Amino acid sequence: MHKIAVLPGDGIGPEVMEQAVRVLDSIAEKYSQTFEYSFSEVGGIAIDKFSTPLPEKTLKICEDSDAILFGSVGGPKWENLPPEKQPERGALLPLRKHFKLFANLRPIKVFKPLSQACSLKEEFFEEGIDIAIFRELTGGIYFGEPKYVSEDGTHAVDTMKYSKDEVIRIAKLAFEAARIRGKKVMSVDKANVLMSSVLWRKVVTKLRDEQYPDIELSHMYVDNAAMQLVRNPSQFDVILTGNMFGDILSDEAAMLTGSLGMLPSASLNEEGFGLYEPIGGTAPDIAGQNIANPTAQILSAALMLRYSFGMDEAATDIECAIEKTLAEGYRTGDIFYGKDSEKRVSTTEFADAILEKL
Amino acid sequence: MHKIAVLPGDGIGPEVMEQAVRVLDSIAEKYSQTFEYSFSEVGGIAIDKFSTPLPEKTLKICEDSDAILFGSVGGPKWENLPPEKQPERGALLPLRKHFKLFANLRPIKVFKPLSQACSLKEEFFEEGIDIAIFRELTGGIYFGEPKYVSEDGTHAVDTMKYSKDEVIRIAKLAFEAARIRGKKVMSVDKANVLMSSVLWRKVVTKLRDEQYPDIELSHMYVDNAAMQLVRNPSQFDVILTGNMFGDILSDEAAMLTGSLGMLPSASLNEEGFGLYEPIGGTAPDIAGQNIANPTAQILSAALMLRYSFGMDEAATDIECAIEKTLAEGYRTGDIFYGKDSEKRVSTTEFADAILEKL
Ligand SMILES: CC(C)[C@H](C(=O)O)[C@@H](O)C(=O)O
Ligand SMILES: CC(C)[C@H](C(=O)O)[C@@H](O)C(=O)O
Repeated sequence: MHKIAVLPGDGIGPEVMEQAVRVLDSIAEKYSQTFEYSFSEVGGIAIDKFSTPLPEKTLKICEDSDAILFGSVGGPKWENLPPEKQPERGALLPLRKHFKLFANLRPIKVFKPLSQACSLKEEFFEEGIDIAIFRELTGGIYFGEPKYVSEDGTHAVDTMKYSKDEVIRIAKLAFEAARIRGKKVMSVDKANVLMSSVLWRKVVTKLRDEQYPDIELSHMYVDNAAMQLVRNPSQFDVILTGNMFGDILSDEAAMLTGSLGMLPSASLNEEGFGLYEPIGGTAPDIAGQNIANPTAQILSAALMLRYSFGMDEAATDIECAIEKTLAEGYRTGDIFYGKDSEKRVSTTEFADAILEKL
Repeated sequence: MHKIAVLPGDGIGPEVMEQAVRVLDSIAEKYSQTFEYSFSEVGGIAIDKFSTPLPEKTLKICEDSDAILFGSVGGPKWENLPPEKQPERGALLPLRKHFKLFANLRPIKVFKPLSQACSLKEEFFEEGIDIAIFRELTGGIYFGEPKYVSEDGTHAVDTMKYSKDEVIRIAKLAFEAARIRGKKVMSVDKANVLMSSVLWRKVVTKLRDEQYPDIELSHMYVDNAAMQLVRNPSQFDVILTGNMFGDILSDEAAMLTGSLGMLPSASLNEEGFGLYEPIGGTAPDIAGQNIANPTAQILSAALMLRYSFGMDEAATDIECAIEKTLAEGYRTGDIFYGKDSEKRVSTTEFADAILEKL
């Protein structure tokens, strides 16, 4: 039995989460597994009910679970709160820290039938975009101390800190992933300016030489990586980077694909416990209308099966079902281009089509 | 009389610099001014001759000048030196620090006749791309202390620090620029995570309220800015940001245009002294063949006239001459698409066409 903390959150969160749970139920049946869901509030809805984006009750439910399936949080209503009380930051950062979710994995992919959505001219991604970004998630400038605004408001300080061990554990995941992918890791840093990057580069290089001689390792400065992504994204297989650079580059890469509604993410700790969430936002403008794209949420559930429950086959099942659903022309509004081959459908209808294939 | 330190550097640096000097000579005549040029070595060529990317002699010449016209530095030959000895980092960071060049201005533009070169599909920049990026250049995580790798190699630290005054002086330049542009400033930070960004946001907002009520100020997190640039770059007028974020975003934005050979930059201090350089690299593969695009170098000279010598009209003259040259179809190889309206020309021929129009 696998216990899942289900935190739908705000905006389109609840309705896409509902579809993910339907898919999980079908997988449970097919693979004779039991999933026990514990629903709880997070983000804006938690602020409204309990005055905090991450209530104790929710945290307790997460602690008692084997994985967290997270929807999305935030919206205009809570935008003017101080940063640490805002839905996204106020829920995600504490969850990452509490569960030591040091690894953020984002598979960035242009789905063939959706290549039209990509920001780039076709000539710049002829070989496709299929990148696995590994972002370190509990270190670097996000959590380093000292970190303060001086009392008189004249200056402020943040500290970017990395230890050898922090670099090794995320780098290992990247190298392991490269082994079952294209065998190439691009480590992104700013070693011409930052000392933490000098350490990063050295540690990653040594790890490669000692334990992953079969993997091709290259290094790139972050400014160059930001450029290469918009010019030649096909060159990347696995990208390995720190917390801050990963935040920027993974969003840039995701947006490039033009299909935020299609992209999941996994945040993992050393015990295989993880938080799984779509990378798009809460899309408050279309919430409650049964028109949102449930794919990213369903793919997040697939990542959960793979990384927290060891159910790789089931995860692949879901991914294939989604590919087929797209190939058959099913489209929610965000990925509908009005072509003859396309059928515009609702959130539930899209999920129905996926379920049929499972 | 204006004294100019001319540092051509490596790769295509010398040959495009030669064209910039020709243009300056023609401007000198037209406006009855005298430019005195002092040439000196910087970057790889300086390493080869004097074992350092920024020799004392060169620094002295810069000190005795009213502005620095910089080519570009670097190349495969010097790539394996330790970072602080490398041509780019080893010359630029000390120059910025020494001359307190706190403001980096990068005008990012898609030239109409070159919109084909832009990475993005036309539909994503229908209203054009014309952004002025103001990047703080002598503060933040580049220079903050402590900054070290521990002796035993187990951890490393960098410090991101901003003072109120540092934020004010760069923000002022951005607001001033907005006044003579589209009256909009987008300040980019990461105030949901960084304390230095919390300060940044507060100081910028206060400055706007007190001194620039006519300017529309918005704030955006850096991850979102990296996304918006690839989806809707037309929304930006002036972007104001810190050293690290500016490094990443300005390169991303520049690369988007697809015409690195067209984009200049200015790094300024409080006295109007500045370092002017193209943002593209040394292009060692095409160096010495008289085929490089001299535009970015010539536009850098135009920025020098505008910001260090107060010769705004002359700067505009040059910019118009370049627009006309493009409109007439003149193209160096990097911006040649084989259309009937295009004439493929050499570096010198392209400059000839510009000179004709002055
Ligand atoms: C909400 C914010 C603190 C967070 C981050 O910067 O990590 C978000 O941008 C993300 O990438 O998950
Ligand atoms: C060479 C390097 C130190 C420099 C920087 O990071 O500032 C460069 O990338 C730039 O943007 O001018």
